[in-house]
Amino acid sequence: MCETCGCGDPELVPIEVSRQILSGNDRQALHNREHFQAAGVLAINLMGSPGSGKTALLEALAKTVRGRLRLGAVSGDLATDRDADRLRAAGIPSIGITTGSACHLDARLVHRALHDFPWRDTDLFFIENVGNLVCPSSFELGEDGKIVVLSVAEGDDKPAKYPGIFAKSKALLVNKIDLLTGGALIDFDLERVRADARRLNKSIEIFPVSAKTGEGMSAWYGWLHGQLGKA
Amino acid sequence: MCETCGCGDPELVPIEVSRQILSGNDRQALHNREHFQAAGVLAINLMGSPGSGKTALLEALAKTVRGRLRLGAVSGDLATDRDADRLRAAGIPSIGITTGSACHLDARLVHRALHDFPWRDTDLFFIENVGNLVCPSSFELGEDGKIVVLSVAEGDDKPAKYPGIFAKSKALLVNKIDLLTGGALIDFDLERVRADARRLNKSIEIFPVSAKTGEGMSAWYGWLHGQLGKA
Repeated sequence: MCETCGCGDPELVPIEVSRQILSGNDRQALHNREHFQAAGVLAINLMGSPGSGKTALLEALAKTVRGRLRLGAVSGDLATDRDADRLRAAGIPSIGITTGSACHLDARLVHRALHDFPWRDTDLFFIENVGNLVCPSSFELGEDGKIVVLSVAEGDDKPAKYPGIFAKSKALLVNKIDLLTGGALIDFDLERVRADARRLNKSIEIFPVSAKTGEGMSAWYGWLHGQLGKA
Repeated sequence: MCETCGCGDPELVPIEVSRQILSGNDRQALHNREHFQAAGVLAINLMGSPGSGKTALLEALAKTVRGRLRLGAVSGDLATDRDADRLRAAGIPSIGITTGSACHLDARLVHRALHDFPWRDTDLFFIENVGNLVCPSSFELGEDGKIVVLSVAEGDDKPAKYPGIFAKSKALLVNKIDLLTGGALIDFDLERVRADARRLNKSIEIFPVSAKTGEGMSAWYGWLHGQLGKA
């Protein structure tokens, strides 16, 4: 396994190089964590497939918490700053991290971004990862917790098929539940998702939400607020 | 950049190791291609995000081509053989490649699978990649062409945000177009997708399709049939 992204060819990456990469990232993540803890900022690593609705959920959260909490975000993307632009338009101070061809954020990229950003002025700081249901969960960023987003349009088989990211997350947001009502074109068994996710991770919190309609957002916000007390 | 999956940390992966990995995969891909060409089999590398509908499109294609073409597939997945099971149930001889934590298929994994599978008895052989819009496009598998699937539920900004995979694909299947009619809950501008994809890749063929309703499947099949003549 290539520990750079938890993938690749075990025969061609020397173990020494793999260890060097992992330990380098872990050292940087520890450093980031010390920063966050010293400033009393709760840092969340928000992960999910392309189009699962990570940015839209932060836009919706901004509406929910307005005037009650100070949000901030860095947003990872291969080639554009569009997500960070959207977050700023929603009132969340944000900057983009353009990764080029990298399929995930690492602790060093996050640390560099912190230097360009008044993150100490926030209560709740989101690190919106690159859209990918595999590699991001292999890289500690110094966050207090990981949250994974799954859109109902992706199907209810995803926890079983992509177990690593569900096993490592504190919470699962099942997004776009508005698509389950009305035309009812999508087959999605929420109970199957619950059962499969809890089989991997018995303490995972699961919130069915719709960034579009706002349904479920207050339950997620309540949980986040509880996490703040623990940071 | 870690050339193992086109991602990672440029400072920590020695260039020599990166080159070794890439050239090792390219050599294996060339070998796979020689196999496919000698047998007159058209091999397609089918890529897309988790839940974009890669397996469902092959199930739908099986209905469209029944009795006219012999299909076969290998199906990459982190942790299960469910996609291969579904394909077999749809009448497509298939085996699964379980990648563990690897976020993409590589040429060696495909070559190993060929040894366990009567792929020479097919006309059109699909290599269904792991659900991921980033890394799979960095690895040649020996295919005749790459096809990328984008579900309308993922949003119309994806070609601009994940350019590499769209730049390298011969065709783009815009799937789940059934979700654009009826309740009209999804905002998706097909013309924006067309324009962004063609800016990256002026020769890319674009097929709006629905694996669920069958809409657009005959146009895609027609194009595939034309590719067979070129193999």
